[in-house]
Amino acid sequence: MKRTLFTTPQDAETAFYDAFEKSDLDAMMGVWADDDDIVCVHPGGPRLTGTEQVREAWRQIFAGGQTLRFRLRHQQSINGMTIVVHTVYEQITAAGEARARQPVIATNVYMRTENGWRMVVHHASPAPATPETEGKRAPKTLH
Amino acid sequence: MKRTLFTTPQDAETAFYDAFEKSDLDAMMGVWADDDDIVCVHPGGPRLTGTEQVREAWRQIFAGGQTLRFRLRHQQSINGMTIVVHTVYEQITAAGEARARQPVIATNVYMRTENGWRMVVHHASPAPATPETEGKRAPKTLH
Repeated sequence: MKRTLFTTPQDAETAFYDAFEKSDLDAMMGVWADDDDIVCVHPGGPRLTGTEQVREAWRQIFAGGQTLRFRLRHQQSINGMTIVVHTVYEQITAAGEARARQPVIATNVYMRTENGWRMVVHHASPAPATPETEGKRAPKTLH
Repeated sequence: MKRTLFTTPQDAETAFYDAFEKSDLDAMMGVWADDDDIVCVHPGGPRLTGTEQVREAWRQIFAGGQTLRFRLRHQQSINGMTIVVHTVYEQITAAGEARARQPVIATNVYMRTENGWRMVVHHASPAPATPETEGKRAPKTLH
């Protein structure tokens, strides 16, 4: 498996969305830490843990054959010494669909390992509106 | 405002759900870092950033007057030096409702600050099933 060494969390994030757009399973798993503790939540999906579950879900998503394009908006970063947390709005368009899909909010967590920065958490969930409206309207009671 | 010093991320997490159950806004905000970079996503809601937005959303949720009870299941932890990431299933029941609500997956991020461990990210989203089924069935194509 191709194992690029990412020298920054941003490099790992760029490679994550690049692998997603290309439906490249080996490149995708090369972004993730090879660890039982990694966590992946696809929008509306269950929590997947560990390399085996995470890989199998990506395999099935990529097997669907849909080509997605991501525009990332409003990235925000929280920086620790060995862990960095990005939150970002994903604006997703699918080939053959005229309109952008409902945006997704993703929390992406990267850890500094002996093999460079690797993804350890991807938690994605549907967002209610475009980022342009972020913070401009009060949320309703959501719980 | 009451400012408890949390010596571990777990202490901060316990205080977070305790404040949530008690609808105690001051205690809730005492769990969070007082920082422009904090991020809160309630299930189905937009991304809220910074103390002002995060506080206002909690104020509105608590003003709803609903008393919730949380059971946390399947907590998983990823530990950095200054940042710790918990993912957890929240089993939520509301007073007056016979059945538990749809479970929620939460990613909770804590940072070690000069005032102890504080929450910096809470990303909550609806989960499709109970944790008992976690990993037992393959996810469908979710993107």
